[in-house]
Amino acid sequence: MRTELCERFGIEYPIFVFTPSEKVAAAVSKAGGLGVLGCVRFNDADDLENVLQWMDANTDGKPYGVDIVMPAKVPTEGTSVDINKLIPETHRDFVAKTLADLGVPPLPEDEERSEGVLGWLHSVARSHVDVALKHPIKLIANALGSPPKDVIDQAHAAGVPVAALAGSAKHALRHAENGVDIVVAQGHEAGGHTGEIGSMVLWPEIVDALDGKAPVLAAGGIGTGRQVAAALALGAQGVWMGSAFLTSAEYDLGVRQASGVSTIQQAMLDATSSDTVRRKIYTGKPARLLKSRWTDAWDADNAPDPLPMPLQNILVSEAHQRMNESSDPTAVAMPVGQIVGRMNEIRPVADIIGELVSGFEEATKRLDGIAES
Amino acid sequence: MRTELCERFGIEYPIFVFTPSEKVAAAVSKAGGLGVLGCVRFNDADDLENVLQWMDANTDGKPYGVDIVMPAKVPTEGTSVDINKLIPETHRDFVAKTLADLGVPPLPEDEERSEGVLGWLHSVARSHVDVALKHPIKLIANALGSPPKDVIDQAHAAGVPVAALAGSAKHALRHAENGVDIVVAQGHEAGGHTGEIGSMVLWPEIVDALDGKAPVLAAGGIGTGRQVAAALALGAQGVWMGSAFLTSAEYDLGVRQASGVSTIQQAMLDATSSDTVRRKIYTGKPARLLKSRWTDAWDADNAPDPLPMPLQNILVSEAHQRMNESSDPTAVAMPVGQIVGRMNEIRPVADIIGELVSGFEEATKRLDGIAES
Repeated sequence: MRTELCERFGIEYPIFVFTPSEKVAAAVSKAGGLGVLGCVRFNDADDLENVLQWMDANTDGKPYGVDIVMPAKVPTEGTSVDINKLIPETHRDFVAKTLADLGVPPLPEDEERSEGVLGWLHSVARSHVDVALKHPIKLIANALGSPPKDVIDQAHAAGVPVAALAGSAKHALRHAENGVDIVVAQGHEAGGHTGEIGSMVLWPEIVDALDGKAPVLAAGGIGTGRQVAAALALGAQGVWMGSAFLTSAEYDLGVRQASGVSTIQQAMLDATSSDTVRRKIYTGKPARLLKSRWTDAWDADNAPDPLPMPLQNILVSEAHQRMNESSDPTAVAMPVGQIVGRMNEIRPVADIIGELVSGFEEATKRLDGIAES
Repeated sequence: MRTELCERFGIEYPIFVFTPSEKVAAAVSKAGGLGVLGCVRFNDADDLENVLQWMDANTDGKPYGVDIVMPAKVPTEGTSVDINKLIPETHRDFVAKTLADLGVPPLPEDEERSEGVLGWLHSVARSHVDVALKHPIKLIANALGSPPKDVIDQAHAAGVPVAALAGSAKHALRHAENGVDIVVAQGHEAGGHTGEIGSMVLWPEIVDALDGKAPVLAAGGIGTGRQVAAALALGAQGVWMGSAFLTSAEYDLGVRQASGVSTIQQAMLDATSSDTVRRKIYTGKPARLLKSRWTDAWDADNAPDPLPMPLQNILVSEAHQRMNESSDPTAVAMPVGQIVGRMNEIRPVADIIGELVSGFEEATKRLDGIAES
């Protein structure tokens, strides 16, 4: 299973995996794909530096990338203290009451409170770029579309291509005009920020709109080799995955339960494809999340409207931290795609990649049989 | 491009096309697919009888099917006069005011008012089955899932298989248990009644859940041969299409403009894949519709909540009729899928089918190249 992206990136398979876990990212790269480490959780650039040093030591020289969260327009922003003043007290009260109603325990007295995920702030995302470019990264992807022009120029000057997520053909064309090298076509099914157009319609539409100006990675709904085959049949040059690796054996974030599985992993193992919702409550922009008692609470009549980005994530940040550390899989906050219905066991990264390749080959043979008969 | 459904139905390609137009249905069957005529618009069984006589005379002996709209549970229903009493005056006022605001002309004085699309009524749908089974139909499909058991038995006694739409694996399994022969897996992208799970996730999920108990037709987002290839790669035995044939040259419903194109066709030619909404305003259940000034009006703060099925369709039936006969493509009520973004020209049915086949073959070759390199 090779496309031109394999030559370009020096990878065995055109499988790009976004993950917040460096353990998963390294395992993906070692298994022949391209691991792309999500940086948004690093409030302090030094923490990212340490993790990238670990990546360099643990990827056997295989290529890897990083994912940042940076709007194209630089917003006016102050320190987190100033930003906190913009959050209404009614919203804080709703969050506090909801956590109490859901029975989510407080953080231990000695644990550091999250100040909000500052990776959503432009200045912090920019520090991620500066740190990452000192490492042998092979890709910078931006979850919010085109990064600002000077960031694209900075990456290109270092010989690093830039990828950007797009939910419509219009956005994809704008990214190509802005100098983005690879477009990730993110269908409605996807976890996290996502638009309204389903993968089946969106992927070929973006491929055709770009008309070769940039290769397309298909995202949204991929968890098996059959789906990889569908993506490549529709004209994508590769796939961009995320959700399916959250239940990989290497995924090490979140508090473990006695079973060795984290609370959030347990919630995902239990979920069907109907158990996601697309809401603004995680970041202020529509993002697909695991349905839980937490998302239900925000759907209730008494819930306030979510705040705009980046305020909403700062509002709910400590709540996320508290739920992540609890042992109740029914009250969690987790971006995940509809493919969660197929995430029913913990598997090593190499096994997941192995099935993507063998499943692709089987699907291709199936099509050959249908074409020839 | 052949699967076992080709043998079973005596068709050249596993392409099933739902259409309200007998001209399109006949052209599909003559081009090697299976045309499936939608019956919901026939309030009077005699009208359906006349149209099926036309089908018999104009399909060169090629197989065709019919599509009915029948809930599995038989609702209590009276005559349309009784039902009209259940519609609140506030809803009628809103519809009247909206049509005035949108500038939709009244019907001509001498034109018969629609009494509501009675095809949504159980008794009428049952009369469609009785009429259709006197013709050499090869399939009865039900847009609302499993028909009642005695209708399935009636079809089977006549040697006619039954297909049912499903938006989740749970529904698909229930259909198979009820004796349904073919499951149409209808993804979120689809026009008309649709669930929340995207085609990329839903199709293989239903294929795997059924595990051979019934073949699966993939629906939702298909308009090109590449998408047919994706559907078959994902395990479907064929495809179920609708929207893409609304802009076929043979489609003859609706008032024509000077260009020879109908008002609704013009609206679809103008639309992008972002120009649909999924709302309850057409039938009382969530259905994907072309976004228009009519759907916008129902999204406004002053709009009432839609009524349950079948009341909502009876409420808006004359409004639909008035908009269908107007010349303004910005105020229309039309179920259509996200593939509308690719419906940019009027083409003969045979050309559309021809591209589905050649596009499938090209996509298969593309995958072979990727697999072999």
